[in-house]
Amino acid sequence: MMEEKSSEETALNVMKGIESKHDGMTYVAPKKFRKKQKQQIDIRQLASEVREGKRTSLSKAITLIESSNAEHKVLAQNLLQELLPYTGNSVRIGITGVPGAGKSTFIEAFGTMLCNMGKKVAVLAIDPSSTISGGSVLGDKTRMENLSRHENAFVRPSPSAGTLGGVHKKTRETMLLCEAAGYEVILIETVGVGQSETYVRGMVDFFLLLVLTGAGDELQGMKKGIMELADGIVVHKADGDNVEKAKNTVREYQKILHFLQPSTPGWQSKALAVSSYEKTGLEDVWEMICSFEKQMKDSGYWYTRRQEQTSDWFHSMIYDHLIDSFFGKKENKDLVKQLEEKILQGKLTVTQGIQELFKDYDS
Amino acid sequence: MMEEKSSEETALNVMKGIESKHDGMTYVAPKKFRKKQKQQIDIRQLASEVREGKRTSLSKAITLIESSNAEHKVLAQNLLQELLPYTGNSVRIGITGVPGAGKSTFIEAFGTMLCNMGKKVAVLAIDPSSTISGGSVLGDKTRMENLSRHENAFVRPSPSAGTLGGVHKKTRETMLLCEAAGYEVILIETVGVGQSETYVRGMVDFFLLLVLTGAGDELQGMKKGIMELADGIVVHKADGDNVEKAKNTVREYQKILHFLQPSTPGWQSKALAVSSYEKTGLEDVWEMICSFEKQMKDSGYWYTRRQEQTSDWFHSMIYDHLIDSFFGKKENKDLVKQLEEKILQGKLTVTQGIQELFKDYDS
Repeated sequence: MMEEKSSEETALNVMKGIESKHDGMTYVAPKKFRKKQKQQIDIRQLASEVREGKRTSLSKAITLIESSNAEHKVLAQNLLQELLPYTGNSVRIGITGVPGAGKSTFIEAFGTMLCNMGKKVAVLAIDPSSTISGGSVLGDKTRMENLSRHENAFVRPSPSAGTLGGVHKKTRETMLLCEAAGYEVILIETVGVGQSETYVRGMVDFFLLLVLTGAGDELQGMKKGIMELADGIVVHKADGDNVEKAKNTVREYQKILHFLQPSTPGWQSKALAVSSYEKTGLEDVWEMICSFEKQMKDSGYWYTRRQEQTSDWFHSMIYDHLIDSFFGKKENKDLVKQLEEKILQGKLTVTQGIQELFKDYDS
Repeated sequence: MMEEKSSEETALNVMKGIESKHDGMTYVAPKKFRKKQKQQIDIRQLASEVREGKRTSLSKAITLIESSNAEHKVLAQNLLQELLPYTGNSVRIGITGVPGAGKSTFIEAFGTMLCNMGKKVAVLAIDPSSTISGGSVLGDKTRMENLSRHENAFVRPSPSAGTLGGVHKKTRETMLLCEAAGYEVILIETVGVGQSETYVRGMVDFFLLLVLTGAGDELQGMKKGIMELADGIVVHKADGDNVEKAKNTVREYQKILHFLQPSTPGWQSKALAVSSYEKTGLEDVWEMICSFEKQMKDSGYWYTRRQEQTSDWFHSMIYDHLIDSFFGKKENKDLVKQLEEKILQGKLTVTQGIQELFKDYDS
């Protein structure tokens, strides 16, 4: 099913925008893609290549989805519509972690294990920080090297620009493309910035949180509310001298999880010790996810949640659109700023500010 | 400063809408207010009476704020603008609790203690459930009987109708009116429904959570994320046989709080045992709040947060207005429903749905 890999084809698929910053990348599809654009993109052809699992075609499809060119946007949506009937057949897993928890090491080890089991694994990333830092979660080409070389893997960093809402949308659509290409496990990595975890929780079936040993100390640096999103907690780096400490930490987390409402109704979130270095505990994580899948499919909540996620996505896109198109007009933005100043100076009530702002707008 | 209390004047100030359901209420201001409307409302006069601390005038002012009559709305905002310079001089305390924690008993005991210390105390309530149940948090006239009779207290239930956004807005504005009337402590009670705690956290300085003994069991019923909003936790009903259990529960909560990020940067949230029945621990709660106030005023965060809260309020009102006015048009609502169905059936991508929805709207 998987084609031979040439020097032009690797599973590490980096965006055009990032490419220039990281030379040494072997991915050259954007160039080919630019050539192809001139020859017109055959959407039916591309859709059928994606369905066949051709990795270069999947990369092209994703680049099309990520393009901000108006013509491409229409083509991208036609492509996605063509592929919609073939989406949904994967386990969607969100992965986040406290700083230093070793997310990419874990994804590399966990993903490789799944690939060796014969699963097709796609790794995507949401990286809202990249607009600020100019970097990307997966921008460092030394990361996930083994996984990205595996014939069953597809590794794709996030776009390096755009609003979080946009990244959010594109990651969802990229996920659908990967599903149409036959990927059975989608790992979505997120960094703990802004609302990214909430966005990812809203697009996956299972949400995994990576932590380090010594819960008491490190929880201080943990983002508020993040533990309550998790269906599973991995106490990572449970190796060498750390094994005993990790076991204690697992117990501590189990206790805290017991205090919290489950992220998924009907599922008691669990904590597990894992060493990506010694390759221990990785099977337990997969077993946990499989038992989650079975239980949720039996209860039907698996499907209910996915429908709710799609509805929520549509509605949040409506809200974003309304707000963006309002603030996109300079006169509105300026007026909001003026009114806000008056309000903060105590010269105007908030309600008066709203009345003033919308007095012409609603007519 | 406080005038004599007639049978027509009590601190328990119930809205017109609730009045009919709870006869036996002594508050008759709405009637007087209706009379006054015919004679035209003198806003400057009303503002000056509110500032003098006249309770009937404050009640009238609040009824004006809560009115949905277009003319009243303009008058209400003029009144509020007049009073804005005299607002802000209170400690704003949000109070929530798990079901059965005894919120009103606590507020009665705590408020009465503060009143006896010479503080002027206003009690407001946000009750989004009242639109469903037809009841109100403070609707039961046997509740807070002693406190509402105290000359230093002012007790006002929430409007019995309207969207949560509306209640939210009106509670904020009611709080400002109470401040202008010289109330030094504002207690805002909320029930654990929907987003009400988040709204209240967004309008108060200090947020207090009431719980019962036996953290392990009862936390199961606790709303997700609520502990992370709390600056203080009161383990309530710490009396009789419960005293030892309460002490253990306090320790358990202290431990959990240690694991969570503080609700207020720079403040370590605390747990305390309180009996409203035996009147123990109430002073400790007030001391905790005073030390919070001192610390936050010293660091300046007290003022920063209030400015941020006002900005956030303005922006969330803008969002609400944009969304409400879009969905307020039947054709938009219907189209969203149609498109959503197609999306859930896999016939349309979410992006296509958005394009279809806004194709005429943005032009």
